[in-house]
Amino acid sequence: MRSAIRTGALRGLPPSNPTSGPLHSGLRNLGGRTTRRLSIPPASGFHSKHRDCSEALATVAKLPDAEPVAPVAPRERITIADIKERRAKAGRLVAPTAAYSDADMFKAPSTGKPKAKRWDHHLTKESTLREPCKLKQAAKHLKTPGLISLGGGLPCPEYFPISSLSLHIPIPPNFSEAATLPPNGGEDVHIGKYDAATFGESKEYDLSIALNYSQATGSAQMTRFVTEHVELVGAAPPYADWRTCLTVGSTGALEQTLRMLCDGVGRRDSLLTEEFSFSTALETAAPLGIGVVGVAMDGEGLLPEAMDAVLSGWEVGERGGRRKPHVLYTVPSGQNPTGATQSEGRRRAIYEVARRHDVFVVEDEPYYYLQMQKPGVEPPTSVEAFLDGLIPTYTSMDVDGRVLRMDSFSKVVVPGSRMGWITASEQIVERFIRHAEVANQGPSGFSQVILHKLLDERWGHEGYLRWLMNLRIEYTKRRDVMVAACEELLPKEVVSWTVPQAGMFQWLKVNHTLHPHASTKSILEIEDEIFNSCIARGVLVARGSWFRAEHGTPPSGLYFRATFAAATPENMREAIRRLGEAIRESYQM
Amino acid sequence: MRSAIRTGALRGLPPSNPTSGPLHSGLRNLGGRTTRRLSIPPASGFHSKHRDCSEALATVAKLPDAEPVAPVAPRERITIADIKERRAKAGRLVAPTAAYSDADMFKAPSTGKPKAKRWDHHLTKESTLREPCKLKQAAKHLKTPGLISLGGGLPCPEYFPISSLSLHIPIPPNFSEAATLPPNGGEDVHIGKYDAATFGESKEYDLSIALNYSQATGSAQMTRFVTEHVELVGAAPPYADWRTCLTVGSTGALEQTLRMLCDGVGRRDSLLTEEFSFSTALETAAPLGIGVVGVAMDGEGLLPEAMDAVLSGWEVGERGGRRKPHVLYTVPSGQNPTGATQSEGRRRAIYEVARRHDVFVVEDEPYYYLQMQKPGVEPPTSVEAFLDGLIPTYTSMDVDGRVLRMDSFSKVVVPGSRMGWITASEQIVERFIRHAEVANQGPSGFSQVILHKLLDERWGHEGYLRWLMNLRIEYTKRRDVMVAACEELLPKEVVSWTVPQAGMFQWLKVNHTLHPHASTKSILEIEDEIFNSCIARGVLVARGSWFRAEHGTPPSGLYFRATFAAATPENMREAIRRLGEAIRESYQM
Repeated sequence: MRSAIRTGALRGLPPSNPTSGPLHSGLRNLGGRTTRRLSIPPASGFHSKHRDCSEALATVAKLPDAEPVAPVAPRERITIADIKERRAKAGRLVAPTAAYSDADMFKAPSTGKPKAKRWDHHLTKESTLREPCKLKQAAKHLKTPGLISLGGGLPCPEYFPISSLSLHIPIPPNFSEAATLPPNGGEDVHIGKYDAATFGESKEYDLSIALNYSQATGSAQMTRFVTEHVELVGAAPPYADWRTCLTVGSTGALEQTLRMLCDGVGRRDSLLTEEFSFSTALETAAPLGIGVVGVAMDGEGLLPEAMDAVLSGWEVGERGGRRKPHVLYTVPSGQNPTGATQSEGRRRAIYEVARRHDVFVVEDEPYYYLQMQKPGVEPPTSVEAFLDGLIPTYTSMDVDGRVLRMDSFSKVVVPGSRMGWITASEQIVERFIRHAEVANQGPSGFSQVILHKLLDERWGHEGYLRWLMNLRIEYTKRRDVMVAACEELLPKEVVSWTVPQAGMFQWLKVNHTLHPHASTKSILEIEDEIFNSCIARGVLVARGSWFRAEHGTPPSGLYFRATFAAATPENMREAIRRLGEAIRESYQM
Repeated sequence: MRSAIRTGALRGLPPSNPTSGPLHSGLRNLGGRTTRRLSIPPASGFHSKHRDCSEALATVAKLPDAEPVAPVAPRERITIADIKERRAKAGRLVAPTAAYSDADMFKAPSTGKPKAKRWDHHLTKESTLREPCKLKQAAKHLKTPGLISLGGGLPCPEYFPISSLSLHIPIPPNFSEAATLPPNGGEDVHIGKYDAATFGESKEYDLSIALNYSQATGSAQMTRFVTEHVELVGAAPPYADWRTCLTVGSTGALEQTLRMLCDGVGRRDSLLTEEFSFSTALETAAPLGIGVVGVAMDGEGLLPEAMDAVLSGWEVGERGGRRKPHVLYTVPSGQNPTGATQSEGRRRAIYEVARRHDVFVVEDEPYYYLQMQKPGVEPPTSVEAFLDGLIPTYTSMDVDGRVLRMDSFSKVVVPGSRMGWITASEQIVERFIRHAEVANQGPSGFSQVILHKLLDERWGHEGYLRWLMNLRIEYTKRRDVMVAACEELLPKEVVSWTVPQAGMFQWLKVNHTLHPHASTKSILEIEDEIFNSCIARGVLVARGSWFRAEHGTPPSGLYFRATFAAATPENMREAIRRLGEAIRESYQM
């Protein structure tokens, strides 16, 4: 069993296809739509020299070819009008307490599309062994007319001590805090305990449903919203059997995903990720015994050639007995910590490497909607123009079903919702749900009913997309404040950066080779010195070393991460001034 | 390393103590307060014959004695007046975004008490390997006056699109739904975004704090509430270094706990639990490879002698190479599914067995406050009388720190809060938090701020305890409706039950030996027949077999679980009538 899993990764691949050139020669014809050459970006920014992509190029020719590229349809986008029409046709959503639901109930027909591939050979034993929750399964009988349930121990809503909730929220397009506060603006909206039963057509969700137990997927009401949203933004996969599932946020979703795909102890699995990666993701993998392999990056993020080289050159013996990695964890937009954003071409190239090596891709996109406005270009005024400008998601190009995408409301609505969702194939989502049933039972009902009222019932899809359009402009302004402060206040002789195109983070490279004690002090010692000096001067930045994927190797450079999400413009400037002072002092400038 | 863990369980035990008699001879002097004899209950109810406790008694004498019993202080209870005085002395709680907090900040001084034992030998490798979340740890610097943080990627609350929340809630003691609805009664309470900054003394928590990221322990504001609550109800452990930690509900808390204590694959660990146990708990353990061992029960729940016998007679060779269990999972009050409630004596006896075999106890108490009113006795009118009547918790008798208690708001406030808390020793809680940081980041901020407003700010501890007092009377009434319906409508020739003293469940034993096809049909076949007939007649009950701890062994009897939590009294009666019909039909009565 175990050896079958070990060797299964390369099984079933067709023989070398002479029509598909080696990876680095460029992307092949993708569905007759685009044929583009993959330009190899220069090894710059924080792309460390010892992982130069030229090494990747040297080994790539040895590889077996990937499967023939299936036709990739252009990114499909459903329109808001489509959704409205579909909802009108479907009629009122009747989804009482703990009702079963899935994305198929709400998405466009997928007639004629192929199904996703099966990933049995990638699943862990733990995930494979999961059985459905017996008590949740029994909910299917609740559909029987006239049935009285003495089954699940669901409390009677009569005993819920909250008879209604009201929110004060912005009215689109007046999103600013000042424009929302009474008496200037905003509106009060009300959620009653029995709205769905009381108000018939106009209300579909209420406290009696949301505050009771539900399926671990979350409510039907929010499942519908996120499923439609995925279609609207063009993130729906091109295969037929994709699904969504609400999560308790991407932190929890990642742990569930890793336990589903990586067995660090028995199978000795490893995880590919960016050379510098989200520290919490690394902290999730480490205690599970999962080896983490950092892939070199440049200003556009992870380098496909470097990923290919790592995989092609993988020797189990040289890697402490670790199996060749079969999972990639990547943050494509505004990567944490580097702020790097993968272009569409970069994403397609990485996806091709994943196909070539049968790698499953975990696409973590908390900052996807914080893609910045280009300087000198007028921001889009229509929702369509905004959506057209977004870089396509991995899911949208995922002909195989090898991508699990994680979305989150944390960065774009509120972190305290502890709520997000995943998009993946039915097989993967089903296994994920089986774990959610015992790991958390889905997100808070308060979070669900409040976000449903705000996003679905009051704002609707258009209002929410306009909120996101507004938010990205706010973050663009904040980014500009930080970049201007860096330009003005940091010693550019030693500090360099790439202007982030998305997200919340400015990644600062400090040239350690120019440090006066470079020959005697280690990079980590210099980092420590500057960090402590920063604290003493009243600024907290994140140390680059916190984010190193591989702690066992020597650091490739000296970095700090600064966020432009939180501080006021004045404080941001002052904080960068203090950071500049700390660096100058350490460098004796 | 692994063998050290394997053999460590019995290390450090003092030699046999001649003053402590064998377990079954009765409980020893507990702190000079009580000396009681443990009466062996008759093998009745759903206590299956093949696990008769007489077998346990036959083997108990072979065991090494437990450690000498440490003096157990009488259950300590802090009063509401104490809490009020303590809060007044401490002054306003200032706990901004992501502030670190722990129970020690809020609990009574523990001067002179010993510390809990260390449990390193019980922890899994996964748990031992956990490192603190670097980004959350950096929050300690935020205390530096004047510091500007460019550290964590916390969104600015300016971009939270909810400027206030209002709730309509009951005013104690008028808790009924009718008395709460406007215009009859209840009150509207308001949570603003910047209440803590705006209103100084009177407000300590608001949306700007609750809806941002927080520590994985949950907010300081709710940590204070649950810590004080634990002391008020007398659930505080008698050792010094106990802590609390908010959870995403007991479902998630149990998974975290099992991953902390049981390694099903590497160490081949097993879990002890009641012979019939909460199916979701069993579904949590199974995919982790944890063996589940069911311990015989009677009408008072798990039998200590049977537990002792299982542990004493444990032969690794006969158990498929599984290590002797070192963790007990138990639901002491209104056990799910059997409705059994362990008396104080029963709990103390089980705790002694746990000490004797170095077993860690996971005390899952969702129904603790649903302890029923005794018939013919006037319900308590004072909070003190109510609390005096509650059966002591395992934590209150836990001199070693070998208990982790799970509390939940699901059954007593709303399940949709997805929120509860654990109480355990500092070491255990610290490991639990390390996992929470990557598993969920704590409960929803909406849930926290709403429950804080309701329970802490508006009701206060007294109001909440009065809510619980009211709720247990409501459940007593519901239980009485169901028991009366069973008495009247079930065929008592074949159906028997124990009247539940707590919780939500009536456990019905159907005598399978009297079935007309008992010689040809298996118990599971009869169960299937009756279950399907129930569905056809319009009643859903839970099958007894769903809850069997050990599916590999033949079932000991035919059972159904019926809840009195959800249906109206009329429907409950009608449902029991239908169940009676289904049983009569199957039994050809």
